[in-house]
Amino acid sequence: MSDASARARILAAAQDLFQRRGFHAVGLSDILAVAKAPKGSLYHHFPAGKDELGARAVEGIAADVTAYIAARRAEGAGAVDIIGDLAEMSARRMEQERFGWSPLIAAVAHQTGADTPLLAQALAGAYAGWRRLLGEAFADEGFAPEIAQSLARTAIALLEGAVILARVDRDAAPLRAVQRQTTRLAALEREDRPPTNG
Amino acid sequence: MSDASARARILAAAQDLFQRRGFHAVGLSDILAVAKAPKGSLYHHFPAGKDELGARAVEGIAADVTAYIAARRAEGAGAVDIIGDLAEMSARRMEQERFGWSPLIAAVAHQTGADTPLLAQALAGAYAGWRRLLGEAFADEGFAPEIAQSLARTAIALLEGAVILARVDRDAAPLRAVQRQTTRLAALEREDRPPTNG
Repeated sequence: MSDASARARILAAAQDLFQRRGFHAVGLSDILAVAKAPKGSLYHHFPAGKDELGARAVEGIAADVTAYIAARRAEGAGAVDIIGDLAEMSARRMEQERFGWSPLIAAVAHQTGADTPLLAQALAGAYAGWRRLLGEAFADEGFAPEIAQSLARTAIALLEGAVILARVDRDAAPLRAVQRQTTRLAALEREDRPPTNG
Repeated sequence: MSDASARARILAAAQDLFQRRGFHAVGLSDILAVAKAPKGSLYHHFPAGKDELGARAVEGIAADVTAYIAARRAEGAGAVDIIGDLAEMSARRMEQERFGWSPLIAAVAHQTGADTPLLAQALAGAYAGWRRLLGEAFADEGFAPEIAQSLARTAIALLEGAVILARVDRDAAPLRAVQRQTTRLAALEREDRPPTNG
């Protein structure tokens, strides 16, 4: 096998296992077994070990989501539609996996600590990136910058909270309510402060 | 030591460790070490092992929150004030613990699976109980039952999502925004459907 494919397989195995069981519960030996890779290749590609692997796994998913948001914006989709689509994608995957799976960020967010500085940094970077992109989308629709950022943050909180409720109740309905809730909060902000171009 | 105190110490140690590291990462030996209890007492009090211990830990916290909500309602507090207080309590504890701690339900919610049926049941029961109580509080303020339940569910999603953002960003601001967001969503519902006594 090529060196690059071993790295990709290790990362994919780590992402999948973390999404099912969280960060701490997954051992490096579990990841190597799924990836069919030797231990040496893990430390070759991820010299700082599991913390680094967690960070790269989060960064990979974060980049996918960022690319998705950017592509939808380029197509002319509005902020709440993009948020609704992200919620729907999580809902479908959770249903397919019979609620034994969570989106990566939510699955590992509560498990960072002093021993996982790289993972903590990657998580903060992921949220900051989505908040910025979604905030720009709201701003393009006429919201003042600070309102746009606040709407983006609230939408992300609603999404992540809905993921928890969906997992616990084994029912994706909370995710399917996120778009309407965000639409309503955005409408309220618009009533408060009419956009200068409105 | 008395038998009852060993059980209480094991449960308190489990709650604390789960809140810091999640469910799977905490070993029974970690819990016994913190609780200063012998292994036999764990299986005596929790015959189904870690899954049962997780379930009882969640039920204990859920009962505390339920009692708090009931007490605040008895004092005449409104639904959004109670939600704001719950958010503020989480915010303060997370700050005190320098964001190395999460409220128990959020900390373990993504880690349930086929091997943790008791924990999964306890988590679902905890949310159902809070949703019912907060839903009753909204209903008492004149919201139709299905709107009241929907507001309660949204408020809980906002709370849990804000906990994730707070932990990742090491900043409790998202929790301190929950009360205002819930107030606004409730106000919108009131505009849509004026209460019959309004």
